[in-house]
Amino acid sequence: MSENKYNFRRPYYAVIFTSKRTSVENKSYREMANLMLDIASKQKGFLGIESARDEICITVSYWQNLEAIKAWKNHAKHLIAQINGKLKWYEYYKVRIAKVEHEYEFHNS
Amino acid sequence: MSENKYNFRRPYYAVIFTSKRTSVENKSYREMANLMLDIASKQKGFLGIESARDEICITVSYWQNLEAIKAWKNHAKHLIAQINGKLKWYEYYKVRIAKVEHEYEFHNS
Repeated sequence: MSENKYNFRRPYYAVIFTSKRTSVENKSYREMANLMLDIASKQKGFLGIESARDEICITVSYWQNLEAIKAWKNHAKHLIAQINGKLKWYEYYKVRIAKVEHEYEFHNS
Repeated sequence: MSENKYNFRRPYYAVIFTSKRTSVENKSYREMANLMLDIASKQKGFLGIESARDEICITVSYWQNLEAIKAWKNHAKHLIAQINGKLKWYEYYKVRIAKVEHEYEFHNS
């Protein structure tokens, strides 16, 4: 995590994606996830993304506005990934779209 | 992750805590983290919490309103944990407080 990379000018939005994976299709899942990351990062209004995988996976992506989030949700290749996600990869997921109102940080220097 | 546990009535807030740990003090860190989880979950306005640890750690807690978030930030035991966190446990952290505007979910049934 590069700290400066994750300082965005407000207003901006966080998309909190929490998911629980099925046990199947790990290789194709990783390929899809990497491809989506690559495409998402080139979309207009994309700011950054952070992810941690454990028993659950939490991915938070950051976007300039709701229009950019909607455009990415409806991107053709993302739609295909969403269908495969429901068919194969996810037991459960939840998406929350939230407007960042306050923020602060700490650096051990 | 129990799905129904994570459906909250809007308006509500997400506190996105992304962090990078130091390599020291793992046992005392875990004790503190468990204690904070226990105390936080008893606070007024607390709704839920989800966490995933990987190269970075992402913890998202959910709260009824900004007052509840502020009260927890200033809770005496949490203040002590924050000081120790800065002294020992964290290389970096960032806190974002965001109002959830939209949400949707998927269950593989």
